[in-house]
Amino acid sequence: MGSSVAFEILSRSGSARQGRLTTPHGVVETPAFMPVGTQGAVKGLLHRDLHELGASILLSNTYHLYLRPGDGLIARLGGLHAFIGWPGPILTDSGGYQAFSLSARRDIDENGITFRSHLDGSLHDLTPERAVDIQRNLGSDIAMALDECLAHPASHAEAQASMERTLRWAARSRHRFLSPPDRPVNPGSALFGIVQGGVFPDLRRASADATVAQGFEGYAIGGLSVGEPADVMYDIVSQTAPLLPDEQPRYLMGVGTPLDIVEAVARGIDLFDCVLPTRNGRNGQLFTREGRLNIKNAQYAEDPRPADEGCGCYTCGHFSRAYLRHLHLAGEIASASLNTLHNLHFYLDTMRRIREAIVFGSLEELRQAFRQAYSPRSIDSGQP
Amino acid sequence: MGSSVAFEILSRSGSARQGRLTTPHGVVETPAFMPVGTQGAVKGLLHRDLHELGASILLSNTYHLYLRPGDGLIARLGGLHAFIGWPGPILTDSGGYQAFSLSARRDIDENGITFRSHLDGSLHDLTPERAVDIQRNLGSDIAMALDECLAHPASHAEAQASMERTLRWAARSRHRFLSPPDRPVNPGSALFGIVQGGVFPDLRRASADATVAQGFEGYAIGGLSVGEPADVMYDIVSQTAPLLPDEQPRYLMGVGTPLDIVEAVARGIDLFDCVLPTRNGRNGQLFTREGRLNIKNAQYAEDPRPADEGCGCYTCGHFSRAYLRHLHLAGEIASASLNTLHNLHFYLDTMRRIREAIVFGSLEELRQAFRQAYSPRSIDSGQP
Repeated sequence: MGSSVAFEILSRSGSARQGRLTTPHGVVETPAFMPVGTQGAVKGLLHRDLHELGASILLSNTYHLYLRPGDGLIARLGGLHAFIGWPGPILTDSGGYQAFSLSARRDIDENGITFRSHLDGSLHDLTPERAVDIQRNLGSDIAMALDECLAHPASHAEAQASMERTLRWAARSRHRFLSPPDRPVNPGSALFGIVQGGVFPDLRRASADATVAQGFEGYAIGGLSVGEPADVMYDIVSQTAPLLPDEQPRYLMGVGTPLDIVEAVARGIDLFDCVLPTRNGRNGQLFTREGRLNIKNAQYAEDPRPADEGCGCYTCGHFSRAYLRHLHLAGEIASASLNTLHNLHFYLDTMRRIREAIVFGSLEELRQAFRQAYSPRSIDSGQP
Repeated sequence: MGSSVAFEILSRSGSARQGRLTTPHGVVETPAFMPVGTQGAVKGLLHRDLHELGASILLSNTYHLYLRPGDGLIARLGGLHAFIGWPGPILTDSGGYQAFSLSARRDIDENGITFRSHLDGSLHDLTPERAVDIQRNLGSDIAMALDECLAHPASHAEAQASMERTLRWAARSRHRFLSPPDRPVNPGSALFGIVQGGVFPDLRRASADATVAQGFEGYAIGGLSVGEPADVMYDIVSQTAPLLPDEQPRYLMGVGTPLDIVEAVARGIDLFDCVLPTRNGRNGQLFTREGRLNIKNAQYAEDPRPADEGCGCYTCGHFSRAYLRHLHLAGEIASASLNTLHNLHFYLDTMRRIREAIVFGSLEELRQAFRQAYSPRSIDSGQP
């Protein structure tokens, strides 16, 4: 049974595309940001908050769900959508990145990744085939092929070897994906391939060409936002995106700041995910139109203004910086919730503004506004 | 300027009363349960969740707000209602109980309580006058007189000495309350007196008579639910409630389980507060019509049913026991939120059922149902 995931481009502005991604669980207007629901919940929010914010697609992490509660349990309960009560589209990663970064110990060879659980030290094998099988049990609408995660910085030789292994793993993933189980949880799901190659243009080109030749329903650019300068990332995206099929969705994994997203959209990217709005919200950092705001700063102790004047979210409509600062210092759960609510509203609203700007031909003006608010200086100083 | 807090009894069933408490910030249908928002937020929920659940009045803790962010700051920002963005009625305690139980060190003498902050070790004096002044700065609709908290068990002599000191403190509190500041935050607020006397009927009678003679806008029964058997508590309530003015509101502080509340309503109590629905929710314990349910139990790992079948809350309408268990074991914030949402729905729905039962003369049937579901055995086993 073939994938029922489809992509349609409705409008263009330079390299930017405004489109519609159709999945078995609903439609996603692109460019889109996927809030991260690592363990089947977005930290600090309820699903109904996400619906209200206009989130159309969630990202969940295969590594976490595989270890707890287990993909078998989730499949028996009808798949991830049913288990977590999220009726809309879900994308899952392959689990590779977390197996590399979170597990107690891991070994990588041609077969796959052997790792010890960060929860209980138990030993696990994650192969390309297993990553597909687990995501099949989860029943996500979009699954990702297992790739090898390259540390930054890496030499050209290291990056090449890793990229070539990722290609071999992609072929195995694709083969497994095209051998469906008897009763798939989500028959119409799609599998995306991932372009690797570090910061080396020749490797990125080789990876893109060979991955595209394998024929996936969409393509991701992986291995960016891992410590390289923003300019390097933008250059790699500029160079790689045009190598991917125009008529298929493009996903820039793990990116990024609001400015990163606008810059990547202008270079032809359609899908994003990042923990920044949720994690930074829990740490008291709020994204605003003027830049970042650290709510714990003493200057906000008696500030009656909302975090972001002119913002239409529940947090800004009802609560002062003074109260948000108090909740943060007091360690209240409501601090995480209200900050996350605002930050995700900001991100999702940014995506709406981006889509509108593509349609109306004003993306360049939006980009200038974000460059102003989210220049490296304003980010580093932590102040608008 | 006099208090604008008023109380009206609309219906009776035996000793139980169904009434309406009018405050400067709105009306409370009684018997009522006050969710605890210790530091100006109910742990795990947003105010809009509370509105949706039908919470009409919040309790906040003077000790916490006095220490952080400070009652002066809150007054400068317009009082607690404005500061926390809760437009409805608020009751504050006196801060005495937390100064006794939470502070790093405390000394009590006739003047008041000297304690060290649990936050930074700083030294503070809480006198009856100061407790009124702080609550005036907060601008709560109902303030509580400072009382001395008696440890359980206590001898008759200890309980008598403590009760008599509480009476002297009550007189000082009342005197201060009737000397209003130039620009009160909440001019129409009320002050409630507290009946003490431990488990000794003669002391409870003496305390009730003398406290009522001082003339408050309402009366609380304090010093219960501190470790004494439930029967003893019920007996003290049975004996004390009729000693309080029939036409004024009666508040049983810090109580209790759903059964405790039904039993106390049947004995003439109008107001309740307790951390059980919120704290137990965070610990994975859910209140249901059949009794308590510990969501972490392995038996729920693949249970597709809602926590409480037939419950109309968001949690039960959308999520399975299996998912709630997963969220709890994974330490997700959504676990605290969904469990708290359900538990507070259960408590507030219980109050609605109680009010209805008083009106329709069916309180005894409701009491039997709660006795069945919340007998000590079912409570202690942690299972329905």
